[in-house]
Amino acid sequence: MSSLDQLAGRLLGDHPRPGVLYGIGAGPGDPGLLTLRAAALLRRLDLGAVPRSVRRGGVAVQAIAAHTAPGSLVELVSDMPADPGAVERGWRGRVAPLVAALDEGRRVGMVTDGDPSLYSTFAHAAAAIVEARPATEVAVVPGVPSMCAAAAVEGRPLAVGADRVAVLPASRLETGDLEAALAAADTVVLLKAGAAMRRLRALLEGPARGWSVRYARRVGLEGEEHADTLDGASADYMALVILRRPAAGGE
Amino acid sequence: MSSLDQLAGRLLGDHPRPGVLYGIGAGPGDPGLLTLRAAALLRRLDLGAVPRSVRRGGVAVQAIAAHTAPGSLVELVSDMPADPGAVERGWRGRVAPLVAALDEGRRVGMVTDGDPSLYSTFAHAAAAIVEARPATEVAVVPGVPSMCAAAAVEGRPLAVGADRVAVLPASRLETGDLEAALAAADTVVLLKAGAAMRRLRALLEGPARGWSVRYARRVGLEGEEHADTLDGASADYMALVILRRPAAGGE
Repeated sequence: MSSLDQLAGRLLGDHPRPGVLYGIGAGPGDPGLLTLRAAALLRRLDLGAVPRSVRRGGVAVQAIAAHTAPGSLVELVSDMPADPGAVERGWRGRVAPLVAALDEGRRVGMVTDGDPSLYSTFAHAAAAIVEARPATEVAVVPGVPSMCAAAAVEGRPLAVGADRVAVLPASRLETGDLEAALAAADTVVLLKAGAAMRRLRALLEGPARGWSVRYARRVGLEGEEHADTLDGASADYMALVILRRPAAGGE
Repeated sequence: MSSLDQLAGRLLGDHPRPGVLYGIGAGPGDPGLLTLRAAALLRRLDLGAVPRSVRRGGVAVQAIAAHTAPGSLVELVSDMPADPGAVERGWRGRVAPLVAALDEGRRVGMVTDGDPSLYSTFAHAAAAIVEARPATEVAVVPGVPSMCAAAAVEGRPLAVGADRVAVLPASRLETGDLEAALAAADTVVLLKAGAAMRRLRALLEGPARGWSVRYARRVGLEGEEHADTLDGASADYMALVILRRPAAGGE
């Protein structure tokens, strides 16, 4: 059997290539949930960018620390505005060091929490980089989403058989959106739930009465919490809540 | 920097433990999208079970082949009935070799495509094993879902900002369920879409008119296909379709 290191080298082929922007999913934070390709790529990057929120910090660094050389990481600090125009303007400025490194033919990646296709800042960063440097090829390495890691710890699937799943960024939506999801799905996953705790508790007294509740924060990280209630749940911005419809006929 | 092999050993600690049932997500099939923990665990299992459909084969084996010793894998072949009672009865019989191995104190895992919490046969197998052997501890290693890998290849996120996502097993649902998802979400991911192609084409002429279409099958495997249309798309059972709501005001 090949060693993991031999295997990782073969998996990469000629990647990372100079001038390509790699978007790398770091998974939920647990270093064991990084993919082999992500780990191998990180070891060969000249420059790895990690997004960090001014207020909330970033979790990706812990997941990737074992694979990055000191000095090869640059933090891209955002104040995470909600207005889409402000988001775009912010990223146009923030990606300048990455654009410069790509122009120099360096091997450049951006690491994001979870999966780069689900509510990731990578989409904004990549758009800003391609706007500034249209020839940039973008390659995305998917990662394990936090909702999958939370369900794994719980030991209860998100969906089986004919179940319908809805995934929503709770803090960004109106109560009507949440109610529509409850009507159209059997499992509702609410991401960025910390700021929406009051509304979620109200839902559980109303349209989601009888649904089971699972709360998770910082899955695989220090300060990890899991609970079957929202009582006493901390309003961590990155918390997620899984609501499951009661079985037909009641439980 | 530690080698990947050193790191993987540290990540595992005293896992895999005898008598524990590990449910291991293999990701979409690309060996590079296996997690470090999954790869390390597989290398230490005495017995790894892999589900396979009578008609459709299994994809997990390709993702894990580099980490399993010859003779350590057993296939659990199912005819994949739709009736939940028949599913349960089938798994009660099929898990007997795993129950025996757990009783003997062997280190036992079951590998599934994608993530074990999303539409995975692992839920059924684990329930049957715990029913037969109630003391069994179950540990789940999450994996990269196929929808994340499909979006990565496409280079277009599933969701940003306030987007709402619905994930549905298309072949198992009524048209009304699909319509409800279109009303309540901005991105609708249809899994197991091969058997539902005719209905999906009809949706695109009706309630999903104007939505963008992305088709993917066998992501990261031989025979991989991606397309921006359903015209000519093969009715592969495991195909997935991503529908995205047109931007407000039209595109």
